[in-house]
Amino acid sequence: MNASVRDSALLCQQAAIQIAELSTDSKNALLRSMADALQAQSATILAANAEDMSAARVKGISEAMLDRLALDDSRVGGIAEALRQVAALPDPVGQVTRSERSDKGFSIERVRVPLGVIAMIYEARPNVTADAAALCIKAGNGVILRGGSEAVRSNQAIAACLRGALRDAGLSEHALMLLDDLSREAMLELMQLSDIVDLIIPRGGEGLIRFVTENARVPVIKHYKGVCHLYVDARADLDKALDILVDGKVSRPSACNSLETVLVHADVAAGFLPRAVRALRERGVELVGDSRARELCPDMAPATDEDFAAEFLSLKLAVGIVDSEDAAIAHIRRFGSDHTEVIVTEDKVAADRFIHALRSAVVMVNTSSRFSDGGELGLGAEIGISTTRLHSYGPMGAEALTIERFVLRGDGQVRHAESRV
Amino acid sequence: MNASVRDSALLCQQAAIQIAELSTDSKNALLRSMADALQAQSATILAANAEDMSAARVKGISEAMLDRLALDDSRVGGIAEALRQVAALPDPVGQVTRSERSDKGFSIERVRVPLGVIAMIYEARPNVTADAAALCIKAGNGVILRGGSEAVRSNQAIAACLRGALRDAGLSEHALMLLDDLSREAMLELMQLSDIVDLIIPRGGEGLIRFVTENARVPVIKHYKGVCHLYVDARADLDKALDILVDGKVSRPSACNSLETVLVHADVAAGFLPRAVRALRERGVELVGDSRARELCPDMAPATDEDFAAEFLSLKLAVGIVDSEDAAIAHIRRFGSDHTEVIVTEDKVAADRFIHALRSAVVMVNTSSRFSDGGELGLGAEIGISTTRLHSYGPMGAEALTIERFVLRGDGQVRHAESRV
Repeated sequence: MNASVRDSALLCQQAAIQIAELSTDSKNALLRSMADALQAQSATILAANAEDMSAARVKGISEAMLDRLALDDSRVGGIAEALRQVAALPDPVGQVTRSERSDKGFSIERVRVPLGVIAMIYEARPNVTADAAALCIKAGNGVILRGGSEAVRSNQAIAACLRGALRDAGLSEHALMLLDDLSREAMLELMQLSDIVDLIIPRGGEGLIRFVTENARVPVIKHYKGVCHLYVDARADLDKALDILVDGKVSRPSACNSLETVLVHADVAAGFLPRAVRALRERGVELVGDSRARELCPDMAPATDEDFAAEFLSLKLAVGIVDSEDAAIAHIRRFGSDHTEVIVTEDKVAADRFIHALRSAVVMVNTSSRFSDGGELGLGAEIGISTTRLHSYGPMGAEALTIERFVLRGDGQVRHAESRV
Repeated sequence: MNASVRDSALLCQQAAIQIAELSTDSKNALLRSMADALQAQSATILAANAEDMSAARVKGISEAMLDRLALDDSRVGGIAEALRQVAALPDPVGQVTRSERSDKGFSIERVRVPLGVIAMIYEARPNVTADAAALCIKAGNGVILRGGSEAVRSNQAIAACLRGALRDAGLSEHALMLLDDLSREAMLELMQLSDIVDLIIPRGGEGLIRFVTENARVPVIKHYKGVCHLYVDARADLDKALDILVDGKVSRPSACNSLETVLVHADVAAGFLPRAVRALRERGVELVGDSRARELCPDMAPATDEDFAAEFLSLKLAVGIVDSEDAAIAHIRRFGSDHTEVIVTEDKVAADRFIHALRSAVVMVNTSSRFSDGGELGLGAEIGISTTRLHSYGPMGAEALTIERFVLRGDGQVRHAESRV
């Protein structure tokens, strides 16, 4: 297999040239036909997914992972709908983001072009296979996917649909490569193909991220964990805070934009925490707290530093009480993952301070961490949420899979007058 | 020394928080006082540079390198002027690049924030020390510089001025670190400080670029060689082509935006090449050519593949004759370095084809490759010209040293209605 990783990547690079040259209409038609193919072959995809689910249950993987892996008709419909949304989005390729005229008389344009070939290495969630392929293709790129072993049958079924749509459009199916059978050595080889692969996106847990960042020669944008915080300020509207807390923890706890820690200002703790604990427990949430939270709610287990640093991905929440906004900011700087942080406050100064003091990709005032999502933020589908502070930070859509370059058009201008012959 | 690389970087990270919080006016005043300090201490800088030049001559380094290293009053004035230009530029930090309202009622802003700590590893040119520091500070970052051993005294003299200006402004001088005495092992350590350093920029030759890309755990943006091409199309205005050729080769051949190869369409070769050869030879340019160029100009030495791939950085030029625009594009794809390519043509279709077929950072029609420069393209000073297709591609100014993130402001919105308590 090793010998062919480079060959596969080269085929993808060749096919990517075709994708880069497609018109917007052709790309959108292709994406819609991919969506149609997914729905037409939904039964095949669900059968493959059922096999993955059985195997995963035998392996004893966690409920959070099972939830990420599971497909049903509605989720397949959602995947197809996401592709149609990507088709409906503006085409980033060829966009002129700035246009100026030099005082020398030539025009200067910044124009978006595809990155080239994008490799994505991800874990359980099979919808990523379709989302990543759609976004890469919309942005004019070739894409090499390596999904998790738990989802191998689901991913193959989905990729087969998408590659079929490429063929039906008269294009090379190699523009989308699914290399699910890669050994660790072959993955290493893929990550070092810096003359072929323009970007590698790892999306998953610590082991995967470390493996990629320590070994890649290709540029990496990490899509790492979300240890998202809610800070309930002294001047919070406690009803809003409670809704935002329940929304951020209870709905789909396995998503990276779920809340893992709530920090409550001491002035409002007595008025907020008991209510919050009741509402969360009614919804099955397990709570761990620092010593001051446990004074207020004695039946809460103690929270360790590991708890405060954890991405639980389940119905578990860490609770802390702080004496000031500064203490909340210090806690988030220490334990946060640069993903998404929320403050609930009616105090504009406190809100601005929170925004400016934290360097996370998404910072919110009085709204739910669940909106930290490419679809909700107007990107259509997202390839993930970047926690790398370079190129793209936060939810990453098709535009983030292009790069601006310079196009100059002149009429014989030279920089040095003495160069005139 | 090794033990203190991490400590130095940590000091820089701490100091960078101060820089990130400076107002625009404070940053601009700081940059102007740095410029004043450089000019006030010009004699000290020139004395240090004279020592570097003597040592370099003893080591027998090339004329191109000596030219890059040399300072005089006018060049020091130019460095100071570049800092004042950076002061006069708009502040990228805090810029709201997009502002929308979600259909859920919250606002979504994209806001530019500093990257954090930027490390730059570069070779001979001492002006880079000031340019890089100024741009990083303008963008709210801390900066760690590691210049070439040839320029060590010049760089130390320049950095001493700049750090003095930081102290005079009541700031920590650690926001600008010059680590010129780093061993190779210490450089390796610096490149792997992924919890402290947010970006590493190597700018120089193949050895440096390879050393960094093979060893860095920190994200890398390469500023690699410029093998820039001029293609003289069948429908070129030959007078424009000649001026652009002379400008691109003769003025400061050691710069990365100088032309290394001219490709001439066969239809105009007889009318263009002998004139071009005469004009270039009068200006001291050595020419090497392919077999067809040598048929027209028999006293030209033969060009090898190595010549076509070379960044000469001197008054040497490779010449080829091609039968079509496609052949020119194929040649550039094979030998180019993704830096800057120029077509001279009056044919709009040929110009557009050239632009779309090539993926270089800067593509130009009918104007000189010398305009591939941050100052000429409106960026003020530049930290270099990125040949990495990620984050920033082409000339890279202060804005490219920031990242956009998301700021949401709402009024209690949740994503799932059932989360309302």
